[in-house]
Amino acid sequence: VRLYGYFRSSATWRVRIALHWKGLAAETLTVDLAAGAQHRPDFLAVNPQARVPTLVDGPLVLTQSLAILEYLEETRPRPPLLPADAAGRARVRQLAQIVACDVHPLQNLGVLLQLERSFGASEEQRRAWARHWIEQGLDALERWIASDGGGERFCHGAAPTLADLCLVPQLFNARRFGAAPERWPALSRIEAACLQLDAFARTAPATQPDAR
Amino acid sequence: VRLYGYFRSSATWRVRIALHWKGLAAETLTVDLAAGAQHRPDFLAVNPQARVPTLVDGPLVLTQSLAILEYLEETRPRPPLLPADAAGRARVRQLAQIVACDVHPLQNLGVLLQLERSFGASEEQRRAWARHWIEQGLDALERWIASDGGGERFCHGAAPTLADLCLVPQLFNARRFGAAPERWPALSRIEAACLQLDAFARTAPATQPDAR
Repeated sequence: VRLYGYFRSSATWRVRIALHWKGLAAETLTVDLAAGAQHRPDFLAVNPQARVPTLVDGPLVLTQSLAILEYLEETRPRPPLLPADAAGRARVRQLAQIVACDVHPLQNLGVLLQLERSFGASEEQRRAWARHWIEQGLDALERWIASDGGGERFCHGAAPTLADLCLVPQLFNARRFGAAPERWPALSRIEAACLQLDAFARTAPATQPDAR
Repeated sequence: VRLYGYFRSSATWRVRIALHWKGLAAETLTVDLAAGAQHRPDFLAVNPQARVPTLVDGPLVLTQSLAILEYLEETRPRPPLLPADAAGRARVRQLAQIVACDVHPLQNLGVLLQLERSFGASEEQRRAWARHWIEQGLDALERWIASDGGGERFCHGAAPTLADLCLVPQLFNARRFGAAPERWPALSRIEAACLQLDAFARTAPATQPDAR
Protein backbone atom coordinates (compact mmCIF):
# COMPACT_ATOMS: atom_id res chain seq x y z
CA VAL A 1 0.00 0.00 0.00
CA ARG A 2 0.99 3.62 -0.52
CA LEU A 3 0.10 6.34 1.99
CA TYR A 4 0.09 10.02 1.11
CA GLY A 5 0.28 12.07 4.30
CA TYR A 6 1.91 14.80 6.32
CA PHE A 7 3.75 14.44 9.62
CA ARG A 8 1.49 16.83 11.52
CA SER A 9 -1.84 15.71 10.04
CA SER A 10 -3.58 13.95 12.89
CA ALA A 11 -5.89 12.05 10.53
CA THR A 12 -2.77 10.70 8.77
CA TRP A 13 -1.31 9.69 12.14
CA ARG A 14 -4.42 7.53 12.77
CA VAL A 15 -3.66 5.58 9.60
CA ARG A 16 0.08 5.33 10.37
CA ILE A 17 -0.80 3.67 13.71
CA ALA A 18 -3.10 1.13 12.02
CA LEU A 19 -0.51 0.22 9.37
CA HIS A 20 2.18 -0.28 12.03
CA TRP A 21 -0.17 -2.22 14.35
CA LYS A 22 -1.09 -4.59 11.53
CA GLY A 23 2.51 -4.97 10.43
CA LEU A 24 1.89 -3.57 6.95
CA ALA A 25 4.84 -2.14 5.08
CA ALA A 26 3.61 1.03 3.41
CA GLU A 27 5.40 3.35 1.06
CA THR A 28 4.79 6.77 2.60
CA LEU A 29 4.80 9.93 0.53
CA THR A 30 4.85 13.42 1.99
CA VAL A 31 2.31 15.99 0.88
CA ASP A 32 3.60 19.20 2.42
CA LEU A 33 0.34 20.85 3.49
CA ALA A 34 2.14 23.91 4.84
CA ALA A 35 3.59 24.51 1.35
CA GLY A 36 0.25 23.86 -0.39
CA ALA A 37 1.54 20.68 -2.07
CA GLN A 38 -1.95 19.16 -1.85
CA HIS A 39 -2.99 21.54 -4.65
CA ARG A 40 -0.25 20.47 -7.08
CA PRO A 41 -1.39 18.65 -10.24
CA ASP A 42 0.51 15.44 -9.42
CA PHE A 43 -1.34 15.04 -6.12
CA LEU A 44 -4.69 16.23 -7.50
CA ALA A 45 -4.39 13.44 -10.07
CA VAL A 46 -4.41 11.01 -7.13
CA ASN A 47 -6.95 12.81 -4.95
CA PRO A 48 -8.91 15.66 -6.56
CA GLN A 49 -10.18 16.64 -3.09
CA ALA A 50 -6.62 17.71 -2.15
CA ARG A 51 -6.69 16.02 1.26
CA VAL A 52 -4.56 13.67 3.27
CA PRO A 53 -4.50 10.89 4.26
CA THR A 54 -4.95 9.18 0.90
CA LEU A 55 -4.31 5.44 0.74
CA VAL A 56 -3.62 3.60 -2.50
CA ASP A 57 -4.06 -0.19 -2.47
CA GLY A 58 -3.74 -1.64 -5.96
CA PRO A 59 -6.38 0.07 -8.11
CA LEU A 60 -8.22 1.46 -5.07
CA VAL A 61 -7.71 5.09 -4.02
CA LEU A 62 -9.20 5.87 -0.61
CA THR A 63 -9.58 9.06 1.37
CA GLN A 64 -11.29 9.76 4.71
CA SER A 65 -9.27 8.26 7.54
CA LEU A 66 -12.14 6.35 9.19
CA ALA A 67 -13.08 4.73 5.87
CA ILE A 68 -9.42 3.78 5.40
CA LEU A 69 -9.25 2.30 8.92
CA GLU A 70 -12.42 0.22 8.38
CA TYR A 71 -11.01 -0.99 5.04
CA LEU A 72 -7.71 -2.04 6.64
CA GLU A 73 -9.67 -3.81 9.40
CA GLU A 74 -11.75 -5.72 6.84
CA THR A 75 -8.91 -6.70 4.54
CA ARG A 76 -6.16 -7.19 7.18
CA PRO A 77 -8.14 -8.23 10.26
CA ARG A 78 -5.19 -9.42 12.40
CA PRO A 79 -4.35 -8.05 14.91
CA PRO A 80 -7.77 -6.41 15.24
CA LEU A 81 -8.57 -2.78 15.93
CA LEU A 82 -12.27 -3.38 16.61
CA PRO A 83 -13.82 -5.61 19.31
CA ALA A 84 -15.46 -8.92 18.38
CA ASP A 85 -19.03 -8.00 19.48
CA ALA A 86 -21.44 -5.62 17.72
CA ALA A 87 -22.14 -3.59 20.87
CA GLY A 88 -18.41 -3.15 21.49
CA ARG A 89 -17.79 -2.14 17.89
CA ALA A 90 -20.63 0.38 18.11
CA ARG A 91 -19.15 1.90 21.27
CA VAL A 92 -15.67 2.12 19.72
CA ARG A 93 -17.01 3.76 16.56
CA GLN A 94 -18.99 6.22 18.67
CA LEU A 95 -15.90 7.22 20.66
CA ALA A 96 -13.83 7.50 17.48
CA GLN A 97 -16.48 9.66 15.80
CA ILE A 98 -16.68 12.07 18.71
CA VAL A 99 -13.11 12.96 17.73
CA ALA A 100 -13.49 12.54 13.97
CA CYS A 101 -16.85 14.32 13.55
CA ASP A 102 -17.29 16.66 16.56
CA VAL A 103 -13.72 17.85 17.17
CA HIS A 104 -11.20 17.36 14.39
CA PRO A 105 -13.19 18.97 11.52
CA LEU A 106 -13.54 22.18 13.53
CA GLN A 107 -9.84 22.71 14.26
CA ASN A 108 -8.45 21.76 10.88
CA LEU A 109 -5.97 24.07 9.19
CA GLY A 110 -8.51 24.82 6.43
CA VAL A 111 -11.14 25.91 8.96
CA LEU A 112 -8.73 28.14 10.85
CA LEU A 113 -7.70 29.82 7.59
CA GLN A 114 -11.36 30.36 6.72
CA LEU A 115 -11.98 32.01 10.11
CA GLU A 116 -9.22 34.45 9.28
CA ARG A 117 -10.61 35.11 5.79
CA SER A 118 -14.27 35.42 6.83
CA PHE A 119 -13.98 37.18 10.18
CA GLY A 120 -10.41 38.47 10.37
CA ALA A 121 -9.81 36.10 13.30
CA SER A 122 -6.43 36.71 14.95
CA GLU A 123 -4.09 33.85 15.77
CA GLU A 124 -5.17 33.97 19.42
CA GLN A 125 -8.85 33.91 18.38
CA ARG A 126 -8.23 30.94 16.10
CA ARG A 127 -6.46 29.07 18.90
CA ALA A 128 -9.34 29.83 21.29
CA TRP A 129 -11.81 28.54 18.68
CA ALA A 130 -9.86 25.29 18.30
CA ARG A 131 -9.57 24.86 22.08
CA HIS A 132 -13.32 25.41 22.49
CA TRP A 133 -14.19 22.42 20.28
CA ILE A 134 -11.35 20.26 21.54
CA GLU A 135 -12.38 20.82 25.16
CA GLN A 136 -16.07 20.28 24.45
CA GLY A 137 -15.43 17.05 22.55
CA LEU A 138 -12.78 15.57 24.83
CA ASP A 139 -14.91 16.46 27.88
CA ALA A 140 -17.64 14.31 26.30
CA LEU A 141 -15.18 11.51 25.57
CA GLU A 142 -13.86 11.58 29.14
CA ARG A 143 -17.45 11.42 30.42
CA TRP A 144 -18.42 8.43 28.23
CA ILE A 145 -15.32 6.55 29.30
CA ALA A 146 -15.84 7.36 32.98
CA SER A 147 -19.54 6.39 32.73
CA ASP A 148 -18.50 2.85 31.80
CA GLY A 149 -16.17 2.54 34.76
CA GLY A 150 -13.11 4.01 33.12
CA GLY A 151 -10.86 1.40 34.67
CA GLU A 152 -9.75 -0.19 31.42
CA ARG A 153 -6.30 0.16 29.93
CA PHE A 154 -7.49 1.56 26.60
CA CYS A 155 -10.67 3.36 25.46
CA HIS A 156 -12.39 0.01 25.16
CA GLY A 157 -10.89 -2.97 26.98
CA ALA A 158 -7.37 -4.32 27.14
CA ALA A 159 -6.25 -3.69 23.56
CA PRO A 160 -6.16 -0.58 21.39
CA THR A 161 -9.04 0.11 19.01
CA LEU A 162 -9.99 2.77 16.46
CA ALA A 163 -11.03 4.97 19.40
CA ASP A 164 -7.46 5.08 20.70
CA LEU A 165 -6.17 5.76 17.17
CA CYS A 166 -8.34 8.89 17.11
CA LEU A 167 -7.73 9.92 20.73
CA VAL A 168 -3.91 10.03 20.81
CA PRO A 169 -3.44 12.32 17.77
CA GLN A 170 -6.24 14.56 19.05
CA LEU A 171 -4.49 14.99 22.42
CA PHE A 172 -1.37 15.95 20.47
CA ASN A 173 -3.45 18.66 18.76
CA ALA A 174 -4.94 19.68 22.11
CA ARG A 175 -1.47 20.55 23.38
CA ARG A 176 -0.59 22.43 20.19
CA PHE A 177 -3.60 24.67 20.76
CA GLY A 178 -2.79 25.23 24.43
CA ALA A 179 -5.33 22.93 26.10
CA ALA A 180 -4.15 21.24 29.31
CA PRO A 181 -4.47 17.43 29.08
CA GLU A 182 -4.66 17.21 32.91
CA ARG A 183 -8.28 18.22 32.37
CA TRP A 184 -8.92 14.64 31.19
CA PRO A 185 -7.42 12.15 33.68
CA ALA A 186 -8.89 9.02 32.08
CA LEU A 187 -7.87 10.09 28.56
CA SER A 188 -4.36 11.03 29.74
CA ARG A 189 -3.92 7.63 31.38
CA ILE A 190 -5.05 5.90 28.17
CA GLU A 191 -2.69 8.07 26.12
CA ALA A 192 0.25 7.01 28.32
CA ALA A 193 -0.69 3.33 27.84
CA CYS A 194 -0.89 3.82 24.07
CA LEU A 195 2.45 5.59 23.83
CA GLN A 196 4.14 2.58 25.38
CA LEU A 197 3.30 0.75 22.15
CA ASP A 198 5.57 1.12 19.12
CA ALA A 199 2.54 1.49 16.84
CA PHE A 200 1.74 4.81 18.55
CA ALA A 201 5.20 6.03 19.60
CA ARG A 202 7.05 5.28 16.36
CA THR A 203 4.41 6.92 14.20
CA ALA A 204 4.22 10.18 16.17
CA PRO A 205 4.68 13.39 14.18
CA ALA A 206 8.15 14.19 15.57
CA THR A 207 9.48 10.80 14.46
CA GLN A 208 8.44 11.24 10.82
CA PRO A 209 11.00 11.87 8.07
CA ASP A 210 9.19 15.05 7.01
CA ALA A 211 9.00 16.46 10.58
CA ARG A 212 10.22 20.01 10.99
CA VAL B 1 -35.49 0.46 19.55
CA ARG B 2 -36.03 4.02 20.73
CA LEU B 3 -34.79 7.02 18.73
CA TYR B 4 -34.33 10.46 20.23
CA GLY B 5 -34.24 13.04 17.47
CA TYR B 6 -35.48 16.28 15.99
CA PHE B 7 -37.31 16.74 12.73
CA ARG B 8 -34.77 19.14 11.24
CA SER B 9 -31.61 17.36 12.45
CA SER B 10 -30.06 15.94 9.30
CA ALA B 11 -28.04 13.37 11.27
CA THR B 12 -31.31 12.12 12.80
CA TRP B 13 -32.85 11.92 9.33
CA ARG B 14 -30.03 9.54 8.27
CA VAL B 15 -31.06 7.17 11.06
CA ARG B 16 -34.79 7.51 10.30
CA ILE B 17 -34.10 6.39 6.71
CA ALA B 18 -32.15 3.31 7.89
CA LEU B 19 -34.87 2.28 10.36
CA HIS B 20 -37.56 2.61 7.69
CA TRP B 21 -35.45 0.83 5.03
CA LYS B 22 -34.86 -2.11 7.37
CA GLY B 23 -38.50 -2.23 8.44
CA LEU B 24 -37.74 -1.55 12.10
CA ALA B 25 -40.52 -0.12 14.23
CA ALA B 26 -38.92 2.51 16.43
CA GLU B 27 -40.42 4.59 19.18
CA THR B 28 -39.37 8.13 18.26
CA LEU B 29 -39.00 10.85 20.88
CA THR B 30 -38.61 14.51 20.04
CA VAL B 31 -35.79 16.51 21.55
CA ASP B 32 -36.66 20.10 20.64
CA LEU B 33 -33.21 21.48 19.83
CA ALA B 34 -34.62 24.94 19.08
CA ALA B 35 -36.01 25.08 22.64
CA GLY B 36 -32.80 23.72 24.19
CA ALA B 37 -34.48 20.47 25.29
CA GLN B 38 -31.21 18.59 24.77
CA HIS B 39 -29.90 20.30 27.94
CA ARG B 40 -32.79 19.15 30.17
CA PRO B 41 -31.92 16.67 32.95
CA ASP B 42 -34.20 13.91 31.60
CA PHE B 43 -32.36 13.89 28.25
CA LEU B 44 -28.91 14.39 29.78
CA ALA B 45 -29.59 11.23 31.81
CA VAL B 46 -29.83 9.39 28.48
CA ASN B 47 -27.06 11.22 26.62
CA PRO B 48 -24.78 13.48 28.69
CA GLN B 49 -23.37 14.89 25.44
CA ALA B 50 -26.75 16.54 24.74
CA ARG B 51 -26.85 15.50 21.09
CA VAL B 52 -29.24 13.82 18.72
CA PRO B 53 -29.63 11.29 17.26
CA THR B 54 -29.43 8.96 20.24
CA LEU B 55 -30.55 5.36 19.75
CA VAL B 56 -31.48 3.08 22.62
CA ASP B 57 -31.51 -0.67 21.91
CA GLY B 58 -32.06 -2.66 25.09
CA PRO B 59 -29.24 -1.73 27.48
CA LEU B 60 -27.22 -0.04 24.71
CA VAL B 61 -27.26 3.76 24.32
CA LEU B 62 -25.64 4.94 21.10
CA THR B 63 -24.86 8.36 19.70
CA GLN B 64 -23.03 9.42 16.52
CA SER B 65 -25.18 8.72 13.49
CA LEU B 66 -22.55 6.80 11.50
CA ALA B 67 -21.86 4.50 14.47
CA ILE B 68 -25.62 3.94 14.80
CA LEU B 69 -25.92 3.15 11.07
CA GLU B 70 -23.04 0.63 11.21
CA TYR B 71 -24.63 -0.96 14.29
CA LEU B 72 -28.01 -1.31 12.57
CA GLU B 73 -26.26 -2.78 9.52
CA GLU B 74 -24.45 -5.37 11.66
CA THR B 75 -27.44 -6.37 13.79
CA ARG B 76 -30.20 -6.06 11.14
CA PRO B 77 -28.33 -6.75 7.90
CA ARG B 78 -31.37 -7.15 5.61
CA PRO B 79 -32.02 -5.27 3.40
CA PRO B 80 -28.41 -4.04 3.33
CA LEU B 81 -27.15 -0.47 3.28
CA LEU B 82 -23.56 -1.40 2.46
CA PRO B 83 -22.25 -3.28 -0.62
CA ALA B 84 -21.04 -6.88 -0.31
CA ASP B 85 -17.39 -6.23 -1.25
CA ALA B 86 -14.71 -4.53 0.85
CA ALA B 87 -13.73 -2.06 -1.88
CA GLY B 88 -17.38 -1.07 -2.36
CA ARG B 89 -17.91 -0.64 1.37
CA ALA B 90 -14.78 1.51 1.56
CA ARG B 91 -16.02 3.73 -1.26
CA VAL B 92 -19.47 4.10 0.34
CA ARG B 93 -17.97 4.98 3.72
CA GLN B 94 -15.67 7.50 2.07
CA LEU B 95 -18.58 9.23 0.31
CA ALA B 96 -20.64 9.20 3.52
CA GLN B 97 -17.77 10.67 5.53
CA ILE B 98 -17.23 13.52 3.08
CA VAL B 99 -20.67 14.65 4.26
CA ALA B 100 -20.40 13.52 7.88
CA CYS B 101 -16.84 14.77 8.57
CA ASP B 102 -16.09 17.52 6.02
CA VAL B 103 -19.47 19.25 5.67
CA HIS B 104 -22.06 18.58 8.35
CA PRO B 105 -19.91 19.40 11.44
CA LEU B 106 -19.15 22.86 10.03
CA GLN B 107 -22.75 23.95 9.45
CA ASN B 108 -24.27 22.61 12.63
CA LEU B 109 -26.47 24.88 14.73
CA GLY B 110 -23.88 24.80 17.54
CA VAL B 111 -21.12 25.98 15.21
CA LEU B 112 -23.19 28.81 13.77
CA LEU B 113 -24.04 30.00 17.30
CA GLN B 114 -20.36 29.89 18.21
CA LEU B 115 -19.49 32.03 15.15
CA GLU B 116 -21.93 34.62 16.45
CA ARG B 117 -20.51 34.48 19.98
CA SER B 118 -16.84 34.49 18.97
CA PHE B 119 -16.86 36.83 15.98
CA GLY B 120 -20.23 38.56 16.06
CA ALA B 121 -21.09 36.86 12.77
CA SER B 122 -24.35 38.16 11.29
CA GLU B 123 -27.02 35.81 10.00
CA GLU B 124 -25.90 36.46 6.43
CA GLN B 125 -22.26 35.75 7.39
CA ARG B 126 -23.28 32.53 9.13
CA ARG B 127 -25.24 31.43 6.06
CA ALA B 128 -22.27 32.23 3.81
CA TRP B 129 -20.00 30.19 6.12
CA ALA B 130 -22.36 27.20 5.94
CA ARG B 131 -22.65 27.49 2.15
CA HIS B 132 -18.85 27.63 1.78
CA TRP B 133 -18.39 24.21 3.42
CA ILE B 134 -21.48 22.68 1.83
CA GLU B 135 -20.33 23.75 -1.63
CA GLN B 136 -16.75 22.63 -1.08
CA GLY B 137 -17.82 19.22 0.22
CA LEU B 138 -20.60 18.50 -2.26
CA ASP B 139 -18.34 19.66 -5.12
CA ALA B 140 -15.92 16.93 -3.97
CA LEU B 141 -18.72 14.37 -3.74
CA GLU B 142 -19.97 15.25 -7.23
CA ARG B 143 -16.41 14.88 -8.55
CA TRP B 144 -15.85 11.45 -6.94
CA ILE B 145 -19.14 10.19 -8.29
CA ALA B 146 -18.49 11.58 -11.77
CA SER B 147 -14.96 10.11 -11.75
CA ASP B 148 -16.44 6.63 -11.43
CA GLY B 149 -18.75 7.15 -14.38
CA GLY B 150 -21.65 8.65 -12.45
CA GLY B 151 -24.16 6.67 -14.44
CA GLU B 152 -25.51 4.67 -11.52
CA ARG B 153 -28.91 5.18 -9.95
CA PHE B 154 -27.58 5.81 -6.43
CA CYS B 155 -24.22 6.97 -5.02
CA HIS B 156 -22.92 3.42 -5.35
CA GLY B 157 -24.76 1.02 -7.65
CA ALA B 158 -28.42 0.18 -8.02
CA ALA B 159 -29.49 0.29 -4.37
CA PRO B 160 -29.22 2.95 -1.68
CA THR B 161 -26.31 2.85 0.77
CA LEU B 162 -25.05 4.86 3.73
CA ALA B 163 -23.71 7.40 1.22
CA ASP B 164 -27.24 8.19 -0.01
CA LEU B 165 -28.47 8.38 3.60
CA CYS B 166 -25.94 11.16 4.19
CA LEU B 167 -26.37 12.88 0.82
CA VAL B 168 -30.13 13.48 0.79
CA PRO B 169 -30.36 15.23 4.22
CA GLN B 170 -27.27 17.29 3.32
CA LEU B 171 -28.93 18.53 0.10
CA PHE B 172 -31.92 19.52 2.24
CA ASN B 173 -29.54 21.60 4.38
CA ALA B 174 -27.89 23.01 1.25
CA ARG B 175 -31.23 24.52 0.19
CA ARG B 176 -31.90 25.89 3.67
CA PHE B 177 -28.62 27.80 3.48
CA GLY B 178 -29.31 29.10 -0.02
CA ALA B 179 -27.08 26.84 -2.11
CA ALA B 180 -28.41 25.91 -5.56
CA PRO B 181 -28.56 22.11 -6.01
CA GLU B 182 -28.38 22.56 -9.82
CA ARG B 183 -24.66 23.01 -9.15
CA TRP B 184 -24.48 19.21 -8.62
CA PRO B 185 -26.25 17.43 -11.51
CA ALA B 186 -25.21 13.88 -10.52
CA LEU B 187 -26.13 14.43 -6.85
CA SER B 188 -29.47 15.99 -7.80
CA ARG B 189 -30.30 13.03 -10.03
CA ILE B 190 -29.44 10.62 -7.19
CA GLU B 191 -31.53 12.67 -4.75
CA ALA B 192 -34.55 12.40 -7.07
CA ALA B 193 -34.10 8.60 -7.26
CA CYS B 194 -33.87 8.38 -3.45
CA LEU B 195 -36.98 10.48 -2.88
CA GLN B 196 -39.01 8.02 -4.93
CA LEU B 197 -38.44 5.56 -2.08
CA ASP B 198 -40.67 5.66 1.00
CA ALA B 199 -37.66 5.23 3.28
CA PHE B 200 -36.44 8.67 2.17
CA ALA B 201 -39.70 10.49 1.39
CA ARG B 202 -41.66 9.42 4.47
CA THR B 203 -38.85 10.30 6.87
CA ALA B 204 -38.25 13.81 5.50
CA PRO B 205 -38.32 16.65 8.03
CA ALA B 206 -41.64 18.10 6.84
CA THR B 207 -43.41 14.75 7.35
CA GLN B 208 -42.35 14.40 11.00
CA PRO B 209 -44.85 14.83 13.85
CA ASP B 210 -42.67 17.53 15.46
CA ALA B 211 -42.28 19.51 12.19
CA ARG B 212 -43.05 23.20 12.42
